[in-house]
Amino acid sequence: MIRVAINGYGTIGKRVADAVTCQPDMTIVGVSKTKPSAEAYIAKARNFPLYIADLSKKEEFDKAGIPVAGSVGDMLAACDIVVDATPGGIGAKNRALYEKAGVKAIWQGGEDHDVAGFSFSSSCNYSDAIGRDYARVVSCNTTGLCRIIKLVDSEYGVRKVRATMIRRGGDPGDIKRGPIDAIVLNPVTIPSHHGPDVQSVLPEIKITTTALIVPTTMMHMHVVQMDLKQPGTRERIIELISKNPRIGLVRKATGITSTAELKEYVMDLGRPRSDLWENGVFEGSISVDEDDLCLFQAIHQEADVVVETIDCIRAMMGTITIPEESIALTNHSLGFSPIR
Amino acid sequence: MIRVAINGYGTIGKRVADAVTCQPDMTIVGVSKTKPSAEAYIAKARNFPLYIADLSKKEEFDKAGIPVAGSVGDMLAACDIVVDATPGGIGAKNRALYEKAGVKAIWQGGEDHDVAGFSFSSSCNYSDAIGRDYARVVSCNTTGLCRIIKLVDSEYGVRKVRATMIRRGGDPGDIKRGPIDAIVLNPVTIPSHHGPDVQSVLPEIKITTTALIVPTTMMHMHVVQMDLKQPGTRERIIELISKNPRIGLVRKATGITSTAELKEYVMDLGRPRSDLWENGVFEGSISVDEDDLCLFQAIHQEADVVVETIDCIRAMMGTITIPEESIALTNHSLGFSPIR
Amino acid sequence: MIRVAINGYGTIGKRVADAVTCQPDMTIVGVSKTKPSAEAYIAKARNFPLYIADLSKKEEFDKAGIPVAGSVGDMLAACDIVVDATPGGIGAKNRALYEKAGVKAIWQGGEDHDVAGFSFSSSCNYSDAIGRDYARVVSCNTTGLCRIIKLVDSEYGVRKVRATMIRRGGDPGDIKRGPIDAIVLNPVTIPSHHGPDVQSVLPEIKITTTALIVPTTMMHMHVVQMDLKQPGTRERIIELISKNPRIGLVRKATGITSTAELKEYVMDLGRPRSDLWENGVFEGSISVDEDDLCLFQAIHQEADVVVETIDCIRAMMGTITIPEESIALTNHSLGFSPIR
Amino acid sequence: MIRVAINGYGTIGKRVADAVTCQPDMTIVGVSKTKPSAEAYIAKARNFPLYIADLSKKEEFDKAGIPVAGSVGDMLAACDIVVDATPGGIGAKNRALYEKAGVKAIWQGGEDHDVAGFSFSSSCNYSDAIGRDYARVVSCNTTGLCRIIKLVDSEYGVRKVRATMIRRGGDPGDIKRGPIDAIVLNPVTIPSHHGPDVQSVLPEIKITTTALIVPTTMMHMHVVQMDLKQPGTRERIIELISKNPRIGLVRKATGITSTAELKEYVMDLGRPRSDLWENGVFEGSISVDEDDLCLFQAIHQEADVVVETIDCIRAMMGTITIPEESIALTNHSLGFSPIR
Ligand SMILES: NC(=O)c1ccc[n+]([C@@H]2O[C@H](COP(=O)([O-])OP(=O)(O)OC[C@H]3O[C@@H](n4cnc5c(N)ncnc54)[C@H](O)[C@@H]3O)[C@@H](O)[C@H]2O)c1
Ligand SMILES: NC(=O)c1ccc[n+]([C@@H]2O[C@H](COP(=O)([O-])OP(=O)(O)OC[C@H]3O[C@@H](n4cnc5c(N)ncnc54)[C@H](O)[C@@H]3O)[C@@H](O)[C@H]2O)c1
Ligand SMILES: NC(=O)c1ccc[n+]([C@@H]2O[C@H](COP(=O)([O-])OP(=O)(O)OC[C@H]3O[C@@H](n4cnc5c(N)ncnc54)[C@H](O)[C@@H]3O)[C@@H](O)[C@H]2O)c1
Ligand SMILES: NC(=O)c1ccc[n+]([C@@H]2O[C@H](COP(=O)([O-])OP(=O)(O)OC[C@H]3O[C@@H](n4cnc5c(N)ncnc54)[C@H](O)[C@@H]3O)[C@@H](O)[C@H]2O)c1
Repeated sequence: MIRVAINGYGTIGKRVADAVTCQPDMTIVGVSKTKPSAEAYIAKARNFPLYIADLSKKEEFDKAGIPVAGSVGDMLAACDIVVDATPGGIGAKNRALYEKAGVKAIWQGGEDHDVAGFSFSSSCNYSDAIGRDYARVVSCNTTGLCRIIKLVDSEYGVRKVRATMIRRGGDPGDIKRGPIDAIVLNPVTIPSHHGPDVQSVLPEIKITTTALIVPTTMMHMHVVQMDLKQPGTRERIIELISKNPRIGLVRKATGITSTAELKEYVMDLGRPRSDLWENGVFEGSISVDEDDLCLFQAIHQEADVVVETIDCIRAMMGTITIPEESIALTNHSLGFSPIR
Repeated sequence: MIRVAINGYGTIGKRVADAVTCQPDMTIVGVSKTKPSAEAYIAKARNFPLYIADLSKKEEFDKAGIPVAGSVGDMLAACDIVVDATPGGIGAKNRALYEKAGVKAIWQGGEDHDVAGFSFSSSCNYSDAIGRDYARVVSCNTTGLCRIIKLVDSEYGVRKVRATMIRRGGDPGDIKRGPIDAIVLNPVTIPSHHGPDVQSVLPEIKITTTALIVPTTMMHMHVVQMDLKQPGTRERIIELISKNPRIGLVRKATGITSTAELKEYVMDLGRPRSDLWENGVFEGSISVDEDDLCLFQAIHQEADVVVETIDCIRAMMGTITIPEESIALTNHSLGFSPIR
Repeated sequence: MIRVAINGYGTIGKRVADAVTCQPDMTIVGVSKTKPSAEAYIAKARNFPLYIADLSKKEEFDKAGIPVAGSVGDMLAACDIVVDATPGGIGAKNRALYEKAGVKAIWQGGEDHDVAGFSFSSSCNYSDAIGRDYARVVSCNTTGLCRIIKLVDSEYGVRKVRATMIRRGGDPGDIKRGPIDAIVLNPVTIPSHHGPDVQSVLPEIKITTTALIVPTTMMHMHVVQMDLKQPGTRERIIELISKNPRIGLVRKATGITSTAELKEYVMDLGRPRSDLWENGVFEGSISVDEDDLCLFQAIHQEADVVVETIDCIRAMMGTITIPEESIALTNHSLGFSPIR
Repeated sequence: MIRVAINGYGTIGKRVADAVTCQPDMTIVGVSKTKPSAEAYIAKARNFPLYIADLSKKEEFDKAGIPVAGSVGDMLAACDIVVDATPGGIGAKNRALYEKAGVKAIWQGGEDHDVAGFSFSSSCNYSDAIGRDYARVVSCNTTGLCRIIKLVDSEYGVRKVRATMIRRGGDPGDIKRGPIDAIVLNPVTIPSHHGPDVQSVLPEIKITTTALIVPTTMMHMHVVQMDLKQPGTRERIIELISKNPRIGLVRKATGITSTAELKEYVMDLGRPRSDLWENGVFEGSISVDEDDLCLFQAIHQEADVVVETIDCIRAMMGTITIPEESIALTNHSLGFSPIR
């Protein structure tokens, strides 16, 4: 049983905690919060031992009726591996804690590649993660790009990728972030940093990216164009996607044309938190003109990295060494097969 | 076993179908759609027999791989009671169908009181529905108002209600409706029609309402002010809410200040479709100054009428004649107790 | 000629600067910015001498081709009165500067009453401002409330006011602030602080307010209910509004039902920056039931305080001592008569 | 004096009417509305004779105090040329009216190319419009694409264009259209119809486009990538834009990163209705890698076609035969030079 701790029980952390709980080979030894909040009550409802970063706040938790199991240090002492899901930038500062406690650590995409020196994507470089002490699961956007590029590259070879990311402004529960009525270039400069981030996983891929932020909370949308090394066909791309364990096909027959309808569909399917763990590639958009492939894919920012994190835990612990095996086990334990 | 048909498997219909399925004393004999769509695939995934309004469209369904069980007429022949959840206005046209088939029928709040001659709210007039052939479950907003007014009226007596409803512009999956960046008076005139709608359930209550539409999809928010017939206390109101099976208390300690955070909380609790079946009264807002009560409550438009519809089925079928018993059974079967 | 300086050339400051420029009895001696930006280029285009808070940043301005006239201290030395339109909270810190420079100062609604010890509204307490050294123009919401309450109180007497403010999340040019998809209680507690703020101008008025934030940028919307000391009529209210120089009537015949359509109308009228300097009371909403008055009014957050600030300058300088005279001069110089 | 009629005094029509009024060589003989509304009051305020499509509605206008000059037929009899700015699809039905009246006609981009058999863009094919009876000014998006493509093609030659259009969901005053919280693929299929529409003006250009709709009202945003026939430089592109009368440069030094800030800037400049008649190319985004050019441009949907329509009138009337001359006259009369 792999003992997992979650440092930062927020949007990503609470999802990873639930996903770990579903796995047969791992268990949650604790999760951490900085102050009492709705999510702290959820941790209590889930019976996750709750640790806090700053023990001087224990009284606040007591008053709120939320039992505190100890400090983050205590939590680290009880785990084999910690998933750091604190806000971007804080994770790097936590590295010293993890080193001191002598535990393996996984960071999320809000941190730079350097925090771990290794960037992870289940479908691309699982094997390279085996036995490592530190790894960073790449961001939601990079995860989505890596999955689809790897799929196409394995079949046809990819000469060049051009991708535009139309990003959600904030997560659904985030009431502070805007914009309310604007399209924001983020960054204004071209290319954006997402290309190099993809290369931290797939160094040989030539890729140029642009990114914008729009006033929606649901999902990101990617416009992906690839120059193939040889002519391809739409049918073959659809076939490949149909077999891929982490890429779903939003079928034309469903009539789905947007992130909102896709989220509703996933909700109706009964997925926990309406999570779309897979890329949602729109069947109707897949267009192949000789060696020129183009498609739209929706990326659920809160979800796609969760399943990758589970695989990353196994790779780093070395308990499963065949990527397909871990991916299958993660999916099966969650009762997850990509939409078709 | 009460045999229930759902005419109109959309936002409300699909939720009622799932809620019926959870009950020990009722079963779904069929649901209806007008054309193949994402929701038709969901019906298939749920193994609900799918009937269609216009049999000439059968081929379209066949092509989409969605089996058609027959016409809406066939569906009506197989049920004891039909829940009409077609878009507002269409339900009234369907009445002739139901009369012809000799089945009991429940309409939703998009129809006028006259469609059934009786307007239903579990906590207010369950007993009056017993044995009826036709009933209308009042709208999401009216349901929310009736619940809280009844609660307060039973304790203190209510001399006058003033309520402002800040309404969501469209449901999350609805990509057609706006506004995108505006506050819309709907209607411009004061009072709005919601007051009289409350009176269709609680005729003795004096109430004035105003209503606006804003660019959000999550929930409605109500500002409710009541003049009491005798002085009250905040503590007693909180106590009453805590005991009510259909009103939840959004506790201050959770730090929740918005519809979005409340929806996230309900999602994290694991509720199907993140549904808030109860009123969400904000503890921090409850203010009682002598005989003047004021509070904020969030109303999840897609969800609150679902549990009422289940109760309404039982009342009309006459199988359970004590309101509290049906309410308790509905809640228990859904695994639902209001947030606290 | 009154020499006016604007400390903080942002949303409010740039509007006040343009309004000052239109007046025959005052002139802009300078405006201030903290860093080069779009607004700094506008100041240059307007030929306003530009002063900077921190002279060490002069080089940045030089590089951007924006001439710097000196420090904020230099600007203060050149003026009779300064309008502080820095972000809320910073104004209070600036008070020492103004005292040292021996200039009169006006703050905006982001500051507390205490910053000046006097809160100003043209229609309510112009005379009390005469000759003062310091004053605070109350916030956009409070200004809008004071205007309509004063109008009604002068005619009928007001026993009690209940108002709900549905507030815009951010200004149109503000891309940082949310929410994107939520209704936020701000504050959750009832009453909100807006009531006491109204009382800083109209101490004798009994008022309870509630406030929410929604995802729109255009305007705030107020639901205002008043208990009158004697029965009133809708017709008389309309008549009073029609004669008021700072309250406009959104006529039913225009078909306008929202903030967005109202903003469009004002834009089409050719107002600079599409500014609605007056309250926009919806004719169709005005409802009087004996001594119970209710109405909707739209408040353009960026604009209504601008004309008040102009009047406040004159009152404090003591050049015009009759309120109606200043209000008329301000309006006339701007070519402004309220919409009818 | 060219006598111009505007059939359809809405978002586009009212702007064309004002722009015509500014020109020394043309005059408005009338504008049309279908029912009394805010815009009808604006027509009255502007002293534009108001004609109505359906004379039986005259009484409604009378009651609203809006004088009616006659029927659309009467208006056509009084003009040399009509600008049809009715909603998409209605314009085609109006063609018979224009033929019967024997007047020249210009349609807008909501109509198909076939309505006129000729599609117009000032910078691309002014000369081909000379003396024509019928022309269609291409849509806002197509206008924006044609301008930038023509500029680059004239200098370097363009081998292929790839463009993604992130479109606003509705105009600011439009409170009906959504989405509220979604990214909508419109169309889902790749390529979108915008490429062929560009080719209706620039038939030799190879272009592939994708299009999405997002919840904003301000402007469209284009991501434009071009393969050049020879290597280019960023500096030269900036130089070309700086000289172009219909393309503006959003300078890095302004700090503008979004549509909202750009709109605010244009508003602050004092442009009527805050209109951005030019393409807004973001200086910071212009990236040239050998023969690969990429940039972001903002397109104000309500404005860019207005100046094109003015030029189109002159070309069709044959009064000015040199494109640059008309463009310069249009701009000069509006007091318009592109932002720099
Ligand atoms: N939200 C997304 O869409 C998304 C997607 C992919 C990756 N990520 C990445 O995941 C990471 C977490 O993001 P999130 O959105 O879940 O953030 P979040 O703000 O939702 O949650 C962060 C949690 O960390 C806790 N926390 C803050 N400081 C802490 C500390 N010093 N010690 C322990 N806990 C602390 C907070 O209380 C909160 O519960 C970031 O690196 C982010 O970039 C986020
Ligand atoms: N959505 C809400 O928030 C909400 C809340 C409370 C009450 N209601 C009421 O519930 C009712 C249903 O609303 P909804 O939001 O679920 O609508 P919806 O549009 O989501 O679903 C309506 C369904 O009816 C089907 N339909 C349409 N015409 C039909 C016909 N002639 N025969 C059979 N099926 C047909 C459609 O295919 C669709 O599946 C309305 O009366 C509405 O006012 C809705
Ligand atoms: N925006 C509104 O809707 C609104 C409405 C009514 C009242 N107010 C109040 O008006 C005041 C200004 O608000 P705003 O919205 O115009 O803010 P803003 O952020 O748009 O503008 C503030 C300006 O002040 C400048 N500034 C910041 N620090 C400074 C300093 N130390 N010295 C000099 N200049 C400095 C900034 O560069 C900026 O130009 C606040 O008190 C606010 O509460 C705002
Ligand atoms: N709004 C934009 O962003 C935009 C941009 C570029 C092109 N266009 C195109 O411009 C045209 C007009 O669009 P709009 O946005 O100005 O529309 P709109 O709806 O704002 O205005 C249309 C006007 O036409 C009037 N009208 C309707 N039917 C009429 C009839 N039969 N006879 C006379 N008048 C009638 C309406 O009263 C209204 O005033 C469309 O082809 C549209 O595709 C619009």
